Amino acid sequence: MTRWALLIEYDGSPFVGWQRQAVGLSVQDVLEAAARRLSGGAPVASVTAGRTDAGVHATGQVAHIDLPDGTRPLEPRTLRDALNFHMKPHPVVVLQAAAVAPDWSARFSADRRRYLYRILNRPARPALADKRVWHVKQALDAGAMQEAAQRLLGRHDFTSFRAAACQAKSPLRTLDRLDVVREGEILQIHAEARSFLHHQVRNMVGTLKLVGEGRWAAGRVRTALEARDRAAAGPTAPPDGLFLMEVGYPSNPFAPMPG
Amino acid sequence: MTRWALLIEYDGSPFVGWQRQAVGLSVQDVLEAAARRLSGGAPVASVTAGRTDAGVHATGQVAHIDLPDGTRPLEPRTLRDALNFHMKPHPVVVLQAAAVAPDWSARFSADRRRYLYRILNRPARPALADKRVWHVKQALDAGAMQEAAQRLLGRHDFTSFRAAACQAKSPLRTLDRLDVVREGEILQIHAEARSFLHHQVRNMVGTLKLVGEGRWAAGRVRTALEARDRAAAGPTAPPDGLFLMEVGYPSNPFAPMPG
Repeated sequence: MTRWALLIEYDGSPFVGWQRQAVGLSVQDVLEAAARRLSGGAPVASVTAGRTDAGVHATGQVAHIDLPDGTRPLEPRTLRDALNFHMKPHPVVVLQAAAVAPDWSARFSADRRRYLYRILNRPARPALADKRVWHVKQALDAGAMQEAAQRLLGRHDFTSFRAAACQAKSPLRTLDRLDVVREGEILQIHAEARSFLHHQVRNMVGTLKLVGEGRWAAGRVRTALEARDRAAAGPTAPPDGLFLMEVGYPSNPFAPMPG
Repeated sequence: MTRWALLIEYDGSPFVGWQRQAVGLSVQDVLEAAARRLSGGAPVASVTAGRTDAGVHATGQVAHIDLPDGTRPLEPRTLRDALNFHMKPHPVVVLQAAAVAPDWSARFSADRRRYLYRILNRPARPALADKRVWHVKQALDAGAMQEAAQRLLGRHDFTSFRAAACQAKSPLRTLDRLDVVREGEILQIHAEARSFLHHQVRNMVGTLKLVGEGRWAAGRVRTALEARDRAAAGPTAPPDGLFLMEVGYPSNPFAPMPG
C-alpha cells in the first residue's frame, strides 16, 4: 500500500461540498471514483485537510488516498494525469501528487490553513466572476473592516462565529491573520489559522461587512466575540466568495514537480 | 434623442460574439433587446468599439446607443441598473453609462484598444479558470516570448497576422505594446494599439507560443511579419484567453460614478 498526498484545485459551485452526502455530487465522490479506476476496482477512501462546504472553492486543497500495492501508475506525475483524466469533465484537478509515509495525514498532519474571501463591491452584478465572488452593491469601507478584523486576532473562544452544526470539540481557535485589502472593485479578505471552526471564515466576513457598511462600529466585533453567542455576530457570508488557498504542513510533501 | 456611451463587461463563452449572427445569441442581441424595453418598443441599434469574436471576453467594452426623447429613465445610474435588470440572466452587465454628444461614436471616436491574453501554463487542466484561459501544458519560456514580441512593435503591414475574413481596408497597424509577463502559472500577454486587425492578437499569441515552446527562435516572428503572408505565421490562439480590457478616447466619457 502506498499513501499519496494530493494537491487539489476545484470549482465548488456544482458540488454539495467536499464531503459525500446522501444526495448530490461531492468533490470526494469525484476523486474517489477516479482513484478506484486505478486501484483495480477496490474502494479508495480519501481524507482531506478541509471539508469545504457546498459552493466553496479551492486552489490548494490537500487530501490523501491509499492505493494498493501493484497499482499502476506509480510515478507522481503519471498518477496526477491519470486521476485528472478520470475526473473529467468535473471541475476538479490534481495539481501535484507525492508519495508520503503511511502515518502522514492530510488532515491531522496539517498545522495551517489559509483562506481567501472575495467581495465584488460595485453596483453591477458580476458577469465574469459569477459564483466566484460575493456581490455587495453598497460601497464598503475597507479601512474600517480592516480595523475591526484586527480585534479578532489571537486565541479566543469563537462560539459567536461558529455554525450550529460544528463538530469540533472545542470552540477555542487561534486566528493568526485576518486582513481586508481593497484592490479596485474587489475586497480580498485573507484569513489564516492552524484550523477554523465550521463557517468561521464566512461568519467573520458576514460580520465585517456590517462594519464596512457603517452599520456597526469596528469595536462591536469584539463585543460580539466576547458574547460567545452566535446571535451576537453577523450573518453567514455566502460560499461563492470563499477559496481554500493553502494547507500548511511542518514538512511540505509537494516538491516542485515540473511537466 | 440622447446618445449614451456604455461601459460593458461580459463573459464571452456562451455567445456567438459581439455581433448579431444568423444563428445563435450575440452580446449585441442581449444589449439591444434590453434597450428596447426602455425605448417604448422602438428598435435600438448599438455601435461598438470592438466586435469581439465568439468566446472572447470583455471587462471594458464600450458601445453607444441612441434612446428616443422622453425615454425613462434618464439618470446614468438608473439607465445602467435598468439595462442590467433586463439583461438578466445573461452574463453581460453595464458598468457605467454616460450621456455623450450626438456625433460621438464608440467606434470612430476610439483611439486606443487594450487587450489581455491569458495562458494557463501547467500540466493540469483548469478547474477554476475554465473558458477563461488558454491551457498550454508544455512549459513556456516567457523571456523568449517577450523578446520575440518586441520585434512586432511599431507600424507594419500585419497581413501575416490577419484573418482571411478581415474587412479592414488596410493591413497597416501600429502596435504600441506587446508584453509577455509570467505570474506563476499564468502568462499574461498585454497588447495595445490604436486598432487591431481581425484575429491579430490571437494570431500574434499563437505565434509567440511557438517561440515559448522553443520551436521557433525569437527572430523568426520578424521574418513571419515581413513575409506578409498568413501562412508564414503561427496558428490562431483560442478565444478563451482573450479579454478586451479597455477602449481609450481622447476624452473619457465615463466620469467616476459611485453607487
